[in-house]
Amino acid sequence: MSLNNFFNPAAVAVVGASNQKTKIGRQILDNLIKGGFKGKIFPINLKEKQIAGLKVYASLENLPLKEWPTLLVVIAIPMPFVLAEIKKCVNLGIKNIIIITAGFKEVGGEGEIAEAEIAKLAAKHQLNILGPNCLGLINTWGKLNASFSSADTSTGNIAFLSQSGAIGSAALDWLKVKDFNFAYFISLGNKVAIDENQVIEYLASDSRIDLIVVYLEEIKDGQKFMNLVSRLIKYKPVAILKAGQSIAGGQLALSHTGSLAGSSAVIKAGVKRAGAIWLENLGELFNLLLIFQKKNCCDNQSQELSLITNAGGLAVLTVDEIERQNISFGYSWDLLGDANGEKYEAGLKKALADKKVHNLLVLLTPQTSTEPLKTAEAVIKIAKKYPTKLVMTSFVGGQAVAEARDLLEKNSIPTFEYPEEAVRSFKKLVDYKKSAKTIKSYKLLKTTMKKPITETDYLKSMALLREYDIPTIKTVKYEATQVKSYQYPVVLKIVGPDFLHKTDKQAVVTNIKDEQTLKKMAALLEKRHKKILANKQNYLIVQKQADHFQEIIMGFKRDASFGPVMMIGLGGIYAEVFKEVKLAMSDLDLQTALEKIAELKIYPILNGARGQKKYDLKSLAEAFVNLSRLANEHPEIKEFDLNPLFVFEKGVLAADVRIII
Amino acid sequence: MSLNNFFNPAAVAVVGASNQKTKIGRQILDNLIKGGFKGKIFPINLKEKQIAGLKVYASLENLPLKEWPTLLVVIAIPMPFVLAEIKKCVNLGIKNIIIITAGFKEVGGEGEIAEAEIAKLAAKHQLNILGPNCLGLINTWGKLNASFSSADTSTGNIAFLSQSGAIGSAALDWLKVKDFNFAYFISLGNKVAIDENQVIEYLASDSRIDLIVVYLEEIKDGQKFMNLVSRLIKYKPVAILKAGQSIAGGQLALSHTGSLAGSSAVIKAGVKRAGAIWLENLGELFNLLLIFQKKNCCDNQSQELSLITNAGGLAVLTVDEIERQNISFGYSWDLLGDANGEKYEAGLKKALADKKVHNLLVLLTPQTSTEPLKTAEAVIKIAKKYPTKLVMTSFVGGQAVAEARDLLEKNSIPTFEYPEEAVRSFKKLVDYKKSAKTIKSYKLLKTTMKKPITETDYLKSMALLREYDIPTIKTVKYEATQVKSYQYPVVLKIVGPDFLHKTDKQAVVTNIKDEQTLKKMAALLEKRHKKILANKQNYLIVQKQADHFQEIIMGFKRDASFGPVMMIGLGGIYAEVFKEVKLAMSDLDLQTALEKIAELKIYPILNGARGQKKYDLKSLAEAFVNLSRLANEHPEIKEFDLNPLFVFEKGVLAADVRIII
Repeated sequence: MSLNNFFNPAAVAVVGASNQKTKIGRQILDNLIKGGFKGKIFPINLKEKQIAGLKVYASLENLPLKEWPTLLVVIAIPMPFVLAEIKKCVNLGIKNIIIITAGFKEVGGEGEIAEAEIAKLAAKHQLNILGPNCLGLINTWGKLNASFSSADTSTGNIAFLSQSGAIGSAALDWLKVKDFNFAYFISLGNKVAIDENQVIEYLASDSRIDLIVVYLEEIKDGQKFMNLVSRLIKYKPVAILKAGQSIAGGQLALSHTGSLAGSSAVIKAGVKRAGAIWLENLGELFNLLLIFQKKNCCDNQSQELSLITNAGGLAVLTVDEIERQNISFGYSWDLLGDANGEKYEAGLKKALADKKVHNLLVLLTPQTSTEPLKTAEAVIKIAKKYPTKLVMTSFVGGQAVAEARDLLEKNSIPTFEYPEEAVRSFKKLVDYKKSAKTIKSYKLLKTTMKKPITETDYLKSMALLREYDIPTIKTVKYEATQVKSYQYPVVLKIVGPDFLHKTDKQAVVTNIKDEQTLKKMAALLEKRHKKILANKQNYLIVQKQADHFQEIIMGFKRDASFGPVMMIGLGGIYAEVFKEVKLAMSDLDLQTALEKIAELKIYPILNGARGQKKYDLKSLAEAFVNLSRLANEHPEIKEFDLNPLFVFEKGVLAADVRIII
Repeated sequence: MSLNNFFNPAAVAVVGASNQKTKIGRQILDNLIKGGFKGKIFPINLKEKQIAGLKVYASLENLPLKEWPTLLVVIAIPMPFVLAEIKKCVNLGIKNIIIITAGFKEVGGEGEIAEAEIAKLAAKHQLNILGPNCLGLINTWGKLNASFSSADTSTGNIAFLSQSGAIGSAALDWLKVKDFNFAYFISLGNKVAIDENQVIEYLASDSRIDLIVVYLEEIKDGQKFMNLVSRLIKYKPVAILKAGQSIAGGQLALSHTGSLAGSSAVIKAGVKRAGAIWLENLGELFNLLLIFQKKNCCDNQSQELSLITNAGGLAVLTVDEIERQNISFGYSWDLLGDANGEKYEAGLKKALADKKVHNLLVLLTPQTSTEPLKTAEAVIKIAKKYPTKLVMTSFVGGQAVAEARDLLEKNSIPTFEYPEEAVRSFKKLVDYKKSAKTIKSYKLLKTTMKKPITETDYLKSMALLREYDIPTIKTVKYEATQVKSYQYPVVLKIVGPDFLHKTDKQAVVTNIKDEQTLKKMAALLEKRHKKILANKQNYLIVQKQADHFQEIIMGFKRDASFGPVMMIGLGGIYAEVFKEVKLAMSDLDLQTALEKIAELKIYPILNGARGQKKYDLKSLAEAFVNLSRLANEHPEIKEFDLNPLFVFEKGVLAADVRIII
């Protein structure tokens, strides 16, 4: 169902309009009028005849709906009365609604019940509902301010979505002071119907928008998000700031490497899989807006940053950050401390005329001969001549540079308080340019599932691996009568539900060289763990002792939003100290699997650094792909760990397995 | 020689004063007058009679020097004439001089020669010279603005030192716009005589100063710096921003683990050893100033941060950063979105009355009922009642919070644009509090040296280690005739100047089990490396094959400024991929050595995590201390590496050694 009418209604009704200027309903009405909305505006109020010079209607039922089929209804009345209005909308065939009112799910109780009712109605009748508990919607291109935030409706090129009203209002206020125009402001609120995915999908095709930036407290449907964003990212940058990245609780514990990942790591992996820009905090978000206010800031494909400066020290600090961010550094022009406006103009002309310069950061500190304002004018003038080149500025100081900064901001030149902020924002742009080139579409998982497994027995789990072409090390149940038949040396282990952390519990003996030792050790383990072994789900196994391998950890964990999250990393004793794992989504192909392996710090070792032997990376990648297939086809498995999986010069062997269903 | 008269002169002479208002000499004169300097001011000019209403003297020689023995001379005349003025100062017994003039060492040629001359005169006659190539000096407590930067001389509690004039002027300008008063501004320039160490030493005892912050392009004498700052850090915080942290070149290559450290790592290690606060960039520097403008901001010992907010989302983002920075999180009060000034006041009263709350961050976003200005007033009022508690604010937004922010700034409440900046600055404060408690004084190295070694032969180097009680693995020169006498299994290696990277060149064979194999392998190596072995400095050795060890890398490299820089870390194949090393200065004692080992990520493994065996950390620490003694007593050794050094359950054994003299 398209949101076209929702974002571009011919008429807007405000339920809760009032003659009391402090009422939110009235503020929304005023904003609609002040914003210059060209369509019809209907104040709805039971008692009043006229509000703000407009004719008032007693109820939605009284509206001339046939004349105005694409009506948007904004509801700003107390919570207990909202559901009745939604029911009216259903009866009247009204599809597009904003619920400003708070006091729903976020406070629990009756509000939560009412919201659930509204959700049902929305699903049943395909209602486009924004909110509840939101600030509303601003579409500057449609001169539509259907929110209770007053805002300039000059048109711009950025869409800002915020789940939190408070963050949204702070952002709107910040945009104002930066002379920053936006295209859309959408306060998502409780997302009873419309969520980030629907809005992103709608905005994707709007060529006036250069960036969609989203503040979220949860990603409702991670798989849909990845599918959507990975398809549109080539032409439409999307940036995500997710709050609660590091809050304890909600931690995704990847089995006994629990500390290796948390839900924030999963969301980050998902956002990166989609090719979206990942933001860590508000500073990064606002600074990204600054860079994207330059229309088509990613028009040039260059990932290199050049500098022009009147202060060597400032350039050095900037290059420090360029190196820290691992950005390629282009060219540098030091105009020296006595550079006035004229010298800057000449320098800028030269720098921007250079065909190798595509992205230029103009640095300035106020010194005796410095002319910040004239320099700003020169920047604006010359930058205009090179529309595909990105020109950013950082004039460091206070009063002496304030006017110049203002002028630059008014002219949409990205202007940063400190050079390191410019560099970090540029880094986000570089990451985006890389994503846009390389991200493959994320395909939603197929639903053809295999017969679910119902038990987590060790040997059966090993067999399941082999079904998916993941070789396992030769493993048999220990039988005292069979000790002659084993190929020594061997490893003896206790496995089963009570032995998840084997090495912790002294339940493994390695490198057993003969029958006698094996028997002795088996007796020892049986004695040590007598009680637990009384449960027949726990038992002793014998495995072939391997040699000349690297230990790898591999596994997955199922996330409610993003589906199975695959993990690969360094195994063995260093696994937990270095936490060297990479996450991937479960739509793995061989190339992506190889890329993930190549991202590991231990990759040079696996790949035969310094004339050492090279391990079988292809087999390793194949095992990873096969495990992702298993993850997709067995949705009943919550967690799956191979730790270790041995990789040899030829082939791989899973040496331990752990499943949670 | 004390700088007391330098910073507090009774009279100031300006060489280069002029009736032309654009001349720097005139600007300095004007700043002296405007600043309200209470002492005598002497313009020096050959031609003029009166400048700015003051009587002019034709030359320094004409001054009534007997009446004004504590004279400060500020020189702002073209470079070619400066040396002559310095010579005049020498003849007249004038000790305190600022050379503003640029064009010296930084441009080379005649300027460099003149600067060298001046340096000689300064050393010989104990002249206190600031500069050349600097902005000058401002001492607000003395109402002395002897600089060409106009600045408000309201007194403050921070001393700002800058090697770069451009960064200095940007900082001064920034301070102005933030209503921020400072105590001293000192532009160090080329440091021909006065350097950061002398200024820090002088300022240390000034109880009006709460923070000394220093922007440097080089630390001239790192050892003196560490000695000085580590002694004063308990009562005087010092913060360092060092430009050129990551510039390629000037990289300190720690032998074949070259990539493990760079000069920036050394300087950082030195600054941390001193207990000073390490700053990465200008944003961090300015934000640190904000936190320290609160007089006695480190009066309370608490390292915990609490929050009060009107926006849950903002609190969550803040806690994200608190966790990222590894700070302990205290308490949190959510006043909800409709909190007006009154509710904030009540909330603040409650929060600050809480005895467990010592550091409080006040968050605010502008929402419908928000009253930023009233809230700011409440913050100011209530914070005053708790002088030992640190109250910081982050009112996020633009226009709606601008006035409130200004008011907070005027009242010296640390006010940050984004909450994450407040958190990061608080982290610096926490780090400082820790340092102030724990840093031991760095003692300058003794000069009693051992007889220098003159060659780097492998077996002699091993012997040198044993002299310093660092055990070495049994190692002998390979002799085909002696194969019977070796204890198998053994390792065979080629050593010598041409075999620095042994594994790269296939010059090592491990785990040789018998005489025959040894002979065969020796022949193979001799054939493979025939040419190189023709040089008798390269030869074959046989070592005992060890087992059940962890591989450690240990070494040092001598830095021109900081002396021997010790290094310890993970050895073996993972060394280079994880770059897991810690640096230390060479005044190591056993406790510090153990602490460095405990800082390593692999510490849990060394210390017997998960019921595994525990390695001999005491012997490892002793070897590290002994190596530092060797470093101190053999200044002829530039680099020294043990890679690997084996640590066992009992004892350690150096298994390879490499020396560069």
